[in-house]
Amino acid sequence: MTTSHAIRHVRVTPIAFRDPPLLNAAGIHEPWALRSIIEIETDSGLVGINESYGDQPMLEALAKAAPALQGLSPWSLNEMETRVSALVKPPAKASEFLGVGAQISLAPGTHVSKNVAKVVSAFEVAMMDLQGQLANAPVVDLLGGAARDRVPFSAYLFYKYAEHIEKPYAPDPWGEALTPEQLVAQARRMIDGYGFQSIKLKAGALPPAQEAAGILALAKAFPGKPLRIDPNANWSVATSLKIVEQLRGVLEYYEDPAPGLDGMAAVARECEVPLATNMVVTDFDEFRRNAERGCPVKIVLSDHHYWGGLRATQRLSTLCSTFGLGLSMHSNSHLGISLVAMTHLCASVPLLNYACDTHYPWQDEEIVEGGRLRFEQGSLRVPPGPGLGATLDRTALARLHDNYLHCGIRNRDDLAQMKKYDPSFTGIQPRF
Amino acid sequence: MTTSHAIRHVRVTPIAFRDPPLLNAAGIHEPWALRSIIEIETDSGLVGINESYGDQPMLEALAKAAPALQGLSPWSLNEMETRVSALVKPPAKASEFLGVGAQISLAPGTHVSKNVAKVVSAFEVAMMDLQGQLANAPVVDLLGGAARDRVPFSAYLFYKYAEHIEKPYAPDPWGEALTPEQLVAQARRMIDGYGFQSIKLKAGALPPAQEAAGILALAKAFPGKPLRIDPNANWSVATSLKIVEQLRGVLEYYEDPAPGLDGMAAVARECEVPLATNMVVTDFDEFRRNAERGCPVKIVLSDHHYWGGLRATQRLSTLCSTFGLGLSMHSNSHLGISLVAMTHLCASVPLLNYACDTHYPWQDEEIVEGGRLRFEQGSLRVPPGPGLGATLDRTALARLHDNYLHCGIRNRDDLAQMKKYDPSFTGIQPRF
Repeated sequence: MTTSHAIRHVRVTPIAFRDPPLLNAAGIHEPWALRSIIEIETDSGLVGINESYGDQPMLEALAKAAPALQGLSPWSLNEMETRVSALVKPPAKASEFLGVGAQISLAPGTHVSKNVAKVVSAFEVAMMDLQGQLANAPVVDLLGGAARDRVPFSAYLFYKYAEHIEKPYAPDPWGEALTPEQLVAQARRMIDGYGFQSIKLKAGALPPAQEAAGILALAKAFPGKPLRIDPNANWSVATSLKIVEQLRGVLEYYEDPAPGLDGMAAVARECEVPLATNMVVTDFDEFRRNAERGCPVKIVLSDHHYWGGLRATQRLSTLCSTFGLGLSMHSNSHLGISLVAMTHLCASVPLLNYACDTHYPWQDEEIVEGGRLRFEQGSLRVPPGPGLGATLDRTALARLHDNYLHCGIRNRDDLAQMKKYDPSFTGIQPRF
Repeated sequence: MTTSHAIRHVRVTPIAFRDPPLLNAAGIHEPWALRSIIEIETDSGLVGINESYGDQPMLEALAKAAPALQGLSPWSLNEMETRVSALVKPPAKASEFLGVGAQISLAPGTHVSKNVAKVVSAFEVAMMDLQGQLANAPVVDLLGGAARDRVPFSAYLFYKYAEHIEKPYAPDPWGEALTPEQLVAQARRMIDGYGFQSIKLKAGALPPAQEAAGILALAKAFPGKPLRIDPNANWSVATSLKIVEQLRGVLEYYEDPAPGLDGMAAVARECEVPLATNMVVTDFDEFRRNAERGCPVKIVLSDHHYWGGLRATQRLSTLCSTFGLGLSMHSNSHLGISLVAMTHLCASVPLLNYACDTHYPWQDEEIVEGGRLRFEQGSLRVPPGPGLGATLDRTALARLHDNYLHCGIRNRDDLAQMKKYDPSFTGIQPRF
């Protein structure tokens, strides 16, 4: 008699963890960031894990789709996708997902329009964790094997306040960052701690000239380190062009300066720095639209959490190389399972030559056994064990789930949070 | 102590098997078709197998690249591709691979310009056969699992002579097919034997009006069966448009009527039947060129043997769905390992809704244990065993290798063969 490795049960646990008051185009991070922890268990008792978004519509979509996995083989990713697609439909009317307002301008991870791709990804990674356990192979091997030994990440800088306006816990150790000097200090602290070789600045929060001064201060303080700036579409075309002129010779790429593909195309026409995006090319349809316009956007910042999974992101890499585009990775607030999955993926994608974004340094919690992951010179090695090579720390899971139950946040809303600091803040973009 | 599954040895055995005198745009099939059988053996004694092209430049490329696999894990497909690419370079000058003359107009499988993709594919499938043995999973599962139970193939009809001009063996049982009546008889015999639900006619060999009459006779004899015609770019744009008008309402798709992307675009502008190709979109660069012209070609006839493997073909399917194209499969003369690999692949690609081409009925040999594969209503099921689910019949391998040693053919040359029948035949295209 052979053991059945069919899927018996899917468990989704929402968690919340401390998040610093980080400023962005849409407002400011709330005190708690939400994620979901997915566990897929087989009849044989194996458990595959993953980490994904934790806002309410995503939890509802996961709950709706989870029963459909029962009885499936962990290898049946195509069938899983078919079943999920049948159960999790994108909303029929645009108005249904435009309700969140300014959130539309931030990470596509918060859009319910991406729910199918997000749920497929949430289950795919956990199923591949199971596959790896069955095959005694790390996920990177299931993806074609390592194309590189270690995956480089970038120092992801934010303008920030010293503490939250509401104070559910003690201030974070990073302090305030509003001036160029404070920004350089933040970068130094992060580079000292992690060894990052590239720097990304989340912009679109302070007046553009002030943010440009920040980049120039970083260029001076860290000569030779590639620099990127991401105003999250909060600048007009004119502002985008003015600022990039001030930053001449300094930027590795210019991420989402102006809104929409039209805005990006207008900037691209007069700007030599390649444009990168995680806002206007966020799915395969948008990829085609960019291609049909002659590719004003030159670098796609992918994210397996909303592109439909690890394998979909590999396919995206083939689209990128076919059309002469570059590829790097976007990130939201996350913990170690997401980071490990990104590492397996990025190790397996030859095209991925840019250091990837990660919010990881902004979190101080961990959900995997062994605690916080250790970077070497800003890079992570792929864990050698089978599957993801990570297991759940159940004590941490219980604690972070308890945070979720008590934190009172159910949907990320940087705009409402910002209104607590500045009731006149509208979030309307482009602001500058 | 763990067992090492590192690759110890790669063995490539050229084989030859009987091939009927099938007519096409470039000339006529020679009495022997060539293939290579690839075996990749691990330290632990596992053997992964595959089947690919067997012409001289391909055998040389395989021989050059094979030692680079030593010590690699069967999972290390990315590293294999890196090593193969470093050793097998495409020819620097176009003239180096244009020497074959009219062959350029046939399957890209004969082009040395595709050598890297062809060698990568040859090794990839054998390595995935090993992966499946290690993981105790069929190759289709390594590709994401089955999207369909069985893979439909089409009846692939040829105009043909009753026997070869040189007679190294007895005539094939199919007899002559030059008239519409003979063509219908050929289709009936093939459909009776295999149950095919679609019909493809290789054209470009006889005067176009005669071939159109063949299609109309087939439409009458097999109502409801999707029909396709493939003149292999041997018709001018004017001829292509004239013939498709005569076939109004009859064709499922129109395969490579006129030469080049220019020719196809000119036909597409005035033709409602979707155009398919295995001649102008044969790699990712050509895919981009078609997309940049607004996709005059609507269906890509892929072939994992020259697209770079099973995984590359899956990626192609994502390119196709992104740009609204269809996908089906091209075929050369082949035996059961290629057929099984196609079946695993096609079962795993949701987009692949057209019946695939296969030359299989034209061969009477087999190289896998258990003998000739059995079709049910024109379809094949994926073998349930691990890996490809096929093992080499070593007696057959020895016999077919002996054929190779004695047949005297080292490169497919349909043009030179045709000159034996008709010294005035030039192969210059478009002929009609």
